[in-house]
Amino acid sequence: LSGILPIAVDAMGGDRAPAEVVEGARLARDEDGIDVVLVGRPEALGDTHGLKVLPASEVVDMDDDPGVAVRRKKDSSLIRCAEAVRDGRASAMVSAGNTGATMASALLRIGRIRGVQRPAIATVLPVPGSTPTVLLDAGANAECTPAWLVQFAQMGAVFFAERFGVADPRVALLSIGEEPGKGTSLVKETHALLSEPGCLSAGKFIGNVEGRDVMTEGVDVVVTDGFTGNVVLKTLEGGVRFLIDTFLTAMTSTEEARQATEVLLPVLAPLNDQLDPETYGGAMLLGVDGVCIISHGSSSSRAIRNAVRVGAEMARADLVGHLAAVVRA
Amino acid sequence: LSGILPIAVDAMGGDRAPAEVVEGARLARDEDGIDVVLVGRPEALGDTHGLKVLPASEVVDMDDDPGVAVRRKKDSSLIRCAEAVRDGRASAMVSAGNTGATMASALLRIGRIRGVQRPAIATVLPVPGSTPTVLLDAGANAECTPAWLVQFAQMGAVFFAERFGVADPRVALLSIGEEPGKGTSLVKETHALLSEPGCLSAGKFIGNVEGRDVMTEGVDVVVTDGFTGNVVLKTLEGGVRFLIDTFLTAMTSTEEARQATEVLLPVLAPLNDQLDPETYGGAMLLGVDGVCIISHGSSSSRAIRNAVRVGAEMARADLVGHLAAVVRA
Repeated sequence: LSGILPIAVDAMGGDRAPAEVVEGARLARDEDGIDVVLVGRPEALGDTHGLKVLPASEVVDMDDDPGVAVRRKKDSSLIRCAEAVRDGRASAMVSAGNTGATMASALLRIGRIRGVQRPAIATVLPVPGSTPTVLLDAGANAECTPAWLVQFAQMGAVFFAERFGVADPRVALLSIGEEPGKGTSLVKETHALLSEPGCLSAGKFIGNVEGRDVMTEGVDVVVTDGFTGNVVLKTLEGGVRFLIDTFLTAMTSTEEARQATEVLLPVLAPLNDQLDPETYGGAMLLGVDGVCIISHGSSSSRAIRNAVRVGAEMARADLVGHLAAVVRA
Repeated sequence: LSGILPIAVDAMGGDRAPAEVVEGARLARDEDGIDVVLVGRPEALGDTHGLKVLPASEVVDMDDDPGVAVRRKKDSSLIRCAEAVRDGRASAMVSAGNTGATMASALLRIGRIRGVQRPAIATVLPVPGSTPTVLLDAGANAECTPAWLVQFAQMGAVFFAERFGVADPRVALLSIGEEPGKGTSLVKETHALLSEPGCLSAGKFIGNVEGRDVMTEGVDVVVTDGFTGNVVLKTLEGGVRFLIDTFLTAMTSTEEARQATEVLLPVLAPLNDQLDPETYGGAMLLGVDGVCIISHGSSSSRAIRNAVRVGAEMARADLVGHLAAVVRA
């Protein structure tokens, strides 16, 4: 991917940092031809395979308080990543570290797109056999106003269009019934605003959807507050994990079952890949004035590589410019 | 089950009424020895196998507005069920019909337990290999106050204890992080109230849980507002359904896979049963002054039979008396 600056990767962030992060960055360079700069403590990184390193002496821990960490750890890899984007030395930042601190770093150092009231976390939910669903806000703002949700809808539509090449994504509001009168006052007021002609310049508002519609091909972008979105995301993660574990335990409970399961591996293995959130590389923090990708804390090198590729693609597509255009409109 | 009055079954409620409902009531009588009274239009019920019938000339449709239906259809099977409980002619009511109208009928005809601010819907989520999880409120109150959530916790603990014979159930608050400071102001204020000594006389408060904990053995009762609860319930229903369909499609996609899947049926079939919400017969409306069970609209005769059995057991155990005791305390 040409025409963009390097992607800044927080080499110290995540449960498997720095080894898996460095390996993911190497894969992004060698396999995808993307220019990467590792940010972190040079002596901790091991063999960097000739990747550029931007030194940062401090590390934000997974359980650090985000506000405190951002104020005190000014030479942390996270803060330095955000500053690299702010200062025009990187086109995007990627971190698998402390989510709250990543948001805070991006907000404080890169800042918001003009007109954006609150950035939101947009998560890509895999839907095997169909395009994925983008869910936002997945946890940046526990309590929201109708105006914020409208901006999330506008930004989510632009992100989905750029990310998956779909011209007119279907945007829905998460509620507890399809009728406009169902849900909380927040949902009802947001429904009224989104129903006004011209509210979305990219995408079309298709009304309310329910929890059961999230993992279907009937919707592209699902908008909700950060509390509900985070609960939905973790409920699905937990439910899918639990169900797969339960089935696998049963399927390997006898010798006969084990043999039959082996025969099924070629048809089951692709599903496992399709359901793996790592395929999509992480969540996007939409609304900050730069591309910021928040990867899962348990990210493998594969997840980091995918996150770097998505970051490069979104920088190349000028996602931030497109977001700024719809929010100001 | 002796010592209780008959169970009033709304024979006209649900997508598969009256045939599956009548059959479920017959099974409850013949297999479980429970006295049942069918409520509905006698000429619509077909062969009632000698079950008693309480005539009601009107039917509340699935898409009727609950408030309007309850005001206008005074001779509906739903209203007559609630009146049978109120007038001491039935020990419990069971309906697979319009959920909102069932709540409204129970509230208006049976009334609340003294001291209960708002009734809540308690749903039983199956967890194969462990006791199930009770989630409440699953949709009765889209917007809640901390005081209501505290009562939901108190009532949920009593219900879990009576329903599953567990003396000291673990009660948790659904949030987006385990720390007390995480979540909305509603969650934070409720956390503080539930943390006060003696707040729960049955059960113990174990703090916040996240969406991924709902389907685990780590918690017994999960408390949340009716919006979040309904979204979680439907997200799980949809996610589980989608995942099973996706796996089954793959597992029958080739002749070789079909044969291997056949070998696995004996280990997979029990899981299907354990994951089936019909095993638990429906949700309980906790807080009204009588036993009221709201079954799924698609209930089969098996689901109705289980709902009748649960209704009889909860009447026999004097669930309402136990709820009244903890709420007044």
